[in-house]
Amino acid sequence: MDEPALDEDGLIARVFAPLATAAGADALGDDAATFLAGSEDIVVTSDALAAGVHFFADDPPEAIAAKALRVNLSDLAAKGAEPFAYLLALALGEGWSASWAERFAASLRSDHARYGVTLLGGDTLRASPGGGTTIAITALGRVPHGRIVRRRSARPGEIITVTGTIGDAALGLLCRLGTDGAPFGLDAENVAALREAYLWPDPPVEAWRAVQRHAMAAMDVSDGLVGDLRKLCRTAAIGARIEADSVPLSPAVRAAVENHPAAFDKALTGGDDYQILATLRPSKVEAYMAELAELGLSATVIGEIVETPGLSIRRRGVPIDITDGRFQHF
Amino acid sequence: MDEPALDEDGLIARVFAPLATAAGADALGDDAATFLAGSEDIVVTSDALAAGVHFFADDPPEAIAAKALRVNLSDLAAKGAEPFAYLLALALGEGWSASWAERFAASLRSDHARYGVTLLGGDTLRASPGGGTTIAITALGRVPHGRIVRRRSARPGEIITVTGTIGDAALGLLCRLGTDGAPFGLDAENVAALREAYLWPDPPVEAWRAVQRHAMAAMDVSDGLVGDLRKLCRTAAIGARIEADSVPLSPAVRAAVENHPAAFDKALTGGDDYQILATLRPSKVEAYMAELAELGLSATVIGEIVETPGLSIRRRGVPIDITDGRFQHF
Repeated sequence: MDEPALDEDGLIARVFAPLATAAGADALGDDAATFLAGSEDIVVTSDALAAGVHFFADDPPEAIAAKALRVNLSDLAAKGAEPFAYLLALALGEGWSASWAERFAASLRSDHARYGVTLLGGDTLRASPGGGTTIAITALGRVPHGRIVRRRSARPGEIITVTGTIGDAALGLLCRLGTDGAPFGLDAENVAALREAYLWPDPPVEAWRAVQRHAMAAMDVSDGLVGDLRKLCRTAAIGARIEADSVPLSPAVRAAVENHPAAFDKALTGGDDYQILATLRPSKVEAYMAELAELGLSATVIGEIVETPGLSIRRRGVPIDITDGRFQHF
Repeated sequence: MDEPALDEDGLIARVFAPLATAAGADALGDDAATFLAGSEDIVVTSDALAAGVHFFADDPPEAIAAKALRVNLSDLAAKGAEPFAYLLALALGEGWSASWAERFAASLRSDHARYGVTLLGGDTLRASPGGGTTIAITALGRVPHGRIVRRRSARPGEIITVTGTIGDAALGLLCRLGTDGAPFGLDAENVAALREAYLWPDPPVEAWRAVQRHAMAAMDVSDGLVGDLRKLCRTAAIGARIEADSVPLSPAVRAAVENHPAAFDKALTGGDDYQILATLRPSKVEAYMAELAELGLSATVIGEIVETPGLSIRRRGVPIDITDGRFQHF
């Protein structure tokens, strides 16, 4: 008898969530967990990247290190937590060299200064024979007790915002692979900008305080805006209504979409954005945006939380649907 | 120009230690780090296991899970920290199945009850193509502020003790591989006991409180008693004098050594013991052992800390040396 297939979400929900009995683990329904320590909560998250899955083995070690650390800091920021430290488990694939490791470490060091974090410990090991380098980072942040910003706390009537721009990394990956119409008739400068966005995620980590102060619910967009918003809806048992044309796009993505309309679907469903999706009471939106602006960051209103479960997307007033990562127009 | 070769210790000391600027990271010179949270210290450690490196891909998933968790709890206990939670980054090699994952998770769950820990979060991902399953666990424990038991705090005049017995797992691995004289002329029962010791490490996690109350310095023995004791000497800038015949051996290891004297070297230099090496003021030894005995655990005096740097080993009164994992008799 064949076993039922399990994807990552099924594996987590069915197999591992029953092990997460602490209240702060939120039954693994969020990107980070908390535990009480003194009068504050420590927020912990752990994300791993594998060569050939999350990065290319021949990516610059500086970019691999930055991605490995930043995807974790992104989770903390989206939970309203101030990052302060991390642990690194580095499984080195065959052919690594001292200079590779030194470049990897130098990149981490430069992110220490930028994000106010430091290396607390970890492990170095040989990767499984035949396999490439795998990097697991556990990042630690702090929030006042009870102040973590969860996914499940979104409520009808709240405004949905997203920081930065969406789709750059997804289109950058396609440019790298040369598939799905990439490079979308773009000039070299735009192609370079998109590839850079894939290689060097730049999450708005500094937004943690604004998120903590103003957001009712939040998560980082790592698996694609549409899919992640669906997850938020499921977790919070609410619905979301978004206006696709409100989704903030960079000039490069905008140009790609003009040349190849299907690139729009990829932008909204692709991954690796590492932007913060947050829901806010209407009265809080202005203050949230003002605080972000002080940090040189931006957020855009893209829709609202509604009672009817599920994600409803409109484009120029017309409802559209997305299946298998592509928009289906009714 | 060839790059200088870097082993794990070199990589940590030269490349990563400069990143560990927090005092609680102890410049990566220990098995765990601390950070202050409220009035207590949180102790964190992260150890990863890779298929084909730290376990066999066809080991029972229950044993793989237990090893992955327990090697981390072992580090916490040796630091005098009470474990309470962990995060799991699980990179699944090709051919994993839902039932494999369920057996893996069931084993973790049974260790939850035994050790008082719970899963806080983590990540599941596909392993790097061609590579096997890799498991990175970050474990969390607590100690009163400033009470972590370090390696570097060992001082001359202290008594060196080790819990349990030494060498079972190392000889068990050799029995599995059928090399170096294994199975050492042992009967099936003894072979099974040694193989079991390799497959299912059983660290004295409950000893954390006795270590915290009595030990001046401690570490878990994971890379071989001799090598780990040398590390402790280097870190603390002291020396150790041990009597090899005092090292506690199980009946199976004793029988192996009787049949194949060279098995003694393997027992003292092999890895995977996950016992606690602790140094104590002479006045504390009795109380330490009494507390362990109440938990059904044991510790044995194997030597003392001295001022002269380096490890000096005597056997039946005669100094011996160990090079490349083998004793050299003068």
